[in-house]
Amino acid sequence: MAPITNGRTLFNEIPTGFPEPGKTTVYDTSQTIDLENVPLNGGVLVKTLVLSADPYMRVQMRPAHIESYMPPFIVGQPIFSLGVGKVIRSEREGFKAGDYVYGLLDHAEYSIPSPDVPIFGIIVFKPEPGLRYSAYIGAGGMPGQTSYYGWKEYANAKAVCHLLSHVFLEILLSAVFPQGETVFVSGGAGPVGSLVIQLAKQDGLKVIASAGSDEKVQFCKDVGADVAFNYKTTSTLDVLRKEGPLNIYWDNVGGATLDAAIENAANHARFLECGAISQYNSKDGVKMKNLDQIYARRIILYGFLVSDLAPKWQEEFYKVIPKKLASGEFKFTEDVTNGLENSGQAIRDVQTGTNTGKKVIVVAQE
Amino acid sequence: MAPITNGRTLFNEIPTGFPEPGKTTVYDTSQTIDLENVPLNGGVLVKTLVLSADPYMRVQMRPAHIESYMPPFIVGQPIFSLGVGKVIRSEREGFKAGDYVYGLLDHAEYSIPSPDVPIFGIIVFKPEPGLRYSAYIGAGGMPGQTSYYGWKEYANAKAVCHLLSHVFLEILLSAVFPQGETVFVSGGAGPVGSLVIQLAKQDGLKVIASAGSDEKVQFCKDVGADVAFNYKTTSTLDVLRKEGPLNIYWDNVGGATLDAAIENAANHARFLECGAISQYNSKDGVKMKNLDQIYARRIILYGFLVSDLAPKWQEEFYKVIPKKLASGEFKFTEDVTNGLENSGQAIRDVQTGTNTGKKVIVVAQE
Repeated sequence: MAPITNGRTLFNEIPTGFPEPGKTTVYDTSQTIDLENVPLNGGVLVKTLVLSADPYMRVQMRPAHIESYMPPFIVGQPIFSLGVGKVIRSEREGFKAGDYVYGLLDHAEYSIPSPDVPIFGIIVFKPEPGLRYSAYIGAGGMPGQTSYYGWKEYANAKAVCHLLSHVFLEILLSAVFPQGETVFVSGGAGPVGSLVIQLAKQDGLKVIASAGSDEKVQFCKDVGADVAFNYKTTSTLDVLRKEGPLNIYWDNVGGATLDAAIENAANHARFLECGAISQYNSKDGVKMKNLDQIYARRIILYGFLVSDLAPKWQEEFYKVIPKKLASGEFKFTEDVTNGLENSGQAIRDVQTGTNTGKKVIVVAQE
Repeated sequence: MAPITNGRTLFNEIPTGFPEPGKTTVYDTSQTIDLENVPLNGGVLVKTLVLSADPYMRVQMRPAHIESYMPPFIVGQPIFSLGVGKVIRSEREGFKAGDYVYGLLDHAEYSIPSPDVPIFGIIVFKPEPGLRYSAYIGAGGMPGQTSYYGWKEYANAKAVCHLLSHVFLEILLSAVFPQGETVFVSGGAGPVGSLVIQLAKQDGLKVIASAGSDEKVQFCKDVGADVAFNYKTTSTLDVLRKEGPLNIYWDNVGGATLDAAIENAANHARFLECGAISQYNSKDGVKMKNLDQIYARRIILYGFLVSDLAPKWQEEFYKVIPKKLASGEFKFTEDVTNGLENSGQAIRDVQTGTNTGKKVIVVAQE
């Protein structure tokens, strides 16, 4: 077979604010690849099916010498993100042609993933019947794992039924006070936040969620949030003052929202510091008025990354979550971008929040 | 015996910035007390010997309807703080004339403490031979307990010797890398900070400490800090960039210092959020640039109060610490204010940081 074009999205320059397609990243068609003969050197040739655009990718658009939890993009080379692909040829043990793989993939139609990446190296998975592949980069992948691992490890959620030992009292009080603790989830419509809402409802909590559009607010309600609001048109402080105090805050956004959550935290609240999308595209800093309440109210803030918690929770996650997604017990949404040539725009959309569900870049059909 | 004057420091008005003696508090000599005949109603008549002035007292100077972890001062009534007194008469079980007591006392020469205070109700203690009473409101009292309980509960300190299991390697590496983890203690010369420095050195850590005067910096060094600096004349950021990264940060001050510590935190750092003196006298808020590093570096911030940890650690504290203070193994300093009429100034000095050691107000000799 003759060599074919291998379209790729390259990192072109480090942005100062929001990433711009055509400037921060460029789509390149200059490379060709001979699928039958390209040397694998012990590796795996993967055809990319779907790629993920995630908030943390902004953190990778930095000068390469600055350390952070995800490796930097290198100017002139393809960007990379989590994705699902199909093995075309393999010289690597544990991988064979036809396998579905999940892990970090270059934004390229075809790639030979390095076996040496520090995290999110590709793994083989068997898709759950009835569940489309793209779910494995969202609720069934890293974002869903983030929700599941973090919630299990740190939320220490108390539903009303766990607070009581007397069955009769329990039934009586459950009727009067149907909820246990209260959790606030910012970024509630995203793939992480929306699964957190569902895990929290499963645990019997009252859930407050914020999102950036009325459509996203509706999705928060659809997946079970008791209170959901558009933070662009409604004051977060007003909602939390009315609906709090908060026993748990799942923080996807940081900044002023974090300050508002601290102001409305209950004593001994747990804050799950999962992301800070409001801060990724600005170096201005944010004025915080309530940090002294961290000690006064004995709040514990847990900064965490999904990768650290994988050894403890990954096996349980894959046993529990894909089934619930396939059956529809747990809901998720996707916002599909078609074509790798549009991955730069997809990445920007996630940073500006204009996506309407988990952003999925469909690169190819099988 | 005829009634005698009972001098008292009254709360006069809620301050907007730093408290001002004569305005925020006034010294009052209008009350008399008949020590032999004043009705106790089941209580204890206490002669005040020494009183403490602590940073958190600023939090008590608030409108009474606002909840916080320490009860508010009431306008027109005496302020109160931790202190040591001697029992003159008692109708309360467990207390007898001649006993030394420690706990919340009115800023009055004589008082009958309520048995119903939610925290820090008076307890009887037997002074360690060779240790003056005032130590029991500093390193041997609540501030020292704060250090001890917090350190034991949350620091999870790793000295180099704990990281290795091979004895020979341990000795070899201890010689090359004499220190284990690195801790930064802000407010290092205060009664809390200076004991933290000593506990950290006992655990084999490298200790960086900040303080607000050259005299205080010297005290930090005297108690064992490896690096100590005057944050008013030296950039905290510069020192931490050179001496970090930090595995542990003991935060007594909050604000910009906390932001600098986050910027220089190691992955998986533990932050002990103990106080925020830099924020008590201003409502302006503080601009934070590094909060997104909480999740990126998996920092855990533990907000805590000494009172919550007392049930677990108090008994051990009283067994261990007073002896070490009496023997001189653990050092402490005091900055003495003589006379209850000067308690308002003593309280202000602690807020502005012009005290030169644990602030002690000597009210009377035995």
